[in-house]
Amino acid sequence: MVSERGNDAERRRQVEIDAVAAANREFYDNVESGDLEAVLDAWEHSRRVQCTHPGWSVIRGWDEVGGSWAAILQSNHVPQFLLTNEHVEVQGDLAWVTVDENLLGQNSVTVSALNLFARHGDVWKMIAHHASVVSSG
Amino acid sequence: MVSERGNDAERRRQVEIDAVAAANREFYDNVESGDLEAVLDAWEHSRRVQCTHPGWSVIRGWDEVGGSWAAILQSNHVPQFLLTNEHVEVQGDLAWVTVDENLLGQNSVTVSALNLFARHGDVWKMIAHHASVVSSG
Repeated sequence: MVSERGNDAERRRQVEIDAVAAANREFYDNVESGDLEAVLDAWEHSRRVQCTHPGWSVIRGWDEVGGSWAAILQSNHVPQFLLTNEHVEVQGDLAWVTVDENLLGQNSVTVSALNLFARHGDVWKMIAHHASVVSSG
Repeated sequence: MVSERGNDAERRRQVEIDAVAAANREFYDNVESGDLEAVLDAWEHSRRVQCTHPGWSVIRGWDEVGGSWAAILQSNHVPQFLLTNEHVEVQGDLAWVTVDENLLGQNSVTVSALNLFARHGDVWKMIAHHASVVSSG
């Protein structure tokens, strides 16, 4: 019985990890395809959200964070990338993902990201994103 | 009664925020003073810990994360800095802090950091650290 319960817990944990990983990938898919509405919808719209774009200072609150993504997706510099090295952790109603964004194109660089998610019912919403360029040197 | 309960909740919340802010500042104080034992003790010693130093890829697990801090503190490049722009969020047994590390000295730069903490009884332990240089340009 104990081991069956253990297996159930492990299965539930894996379902959660898969759901967070899917939310994380979907976020990047929507960035890549320039789907601003979906990118904005991926975030929790609250005062507590925070975002550090590569080379930027942190910005806080939905107005600023949402505005930054709108500016990026409405520019001519929508990034294309491959995601590698994903790792998901879940604890309770929070989850965090580390992932490498391998940018394609002329300035091919790798960006290391830490993304924080909060559970909203069956949906995981992004509440923090910190991304930084990995030095090539 | 309702408003008194609301005040109690708000007070408890502020106590939690203060405890996380103190843990975060103590971590940096110990980095600055080169107290390796205290820096290592500030972290949860587990497989789930993750750390992205400025310009680095993410490293995972206590062996690697702890080893990276040992290497930094045993080098001749222990950073000195002023902390500004701190902001703490707490949800349940997890908390996260964004803060600017304003490095002093010849190469004065600002580093933007996102630090994730988990509650261990009365103590908040670091479980993730992502730091990146803010572009001066």
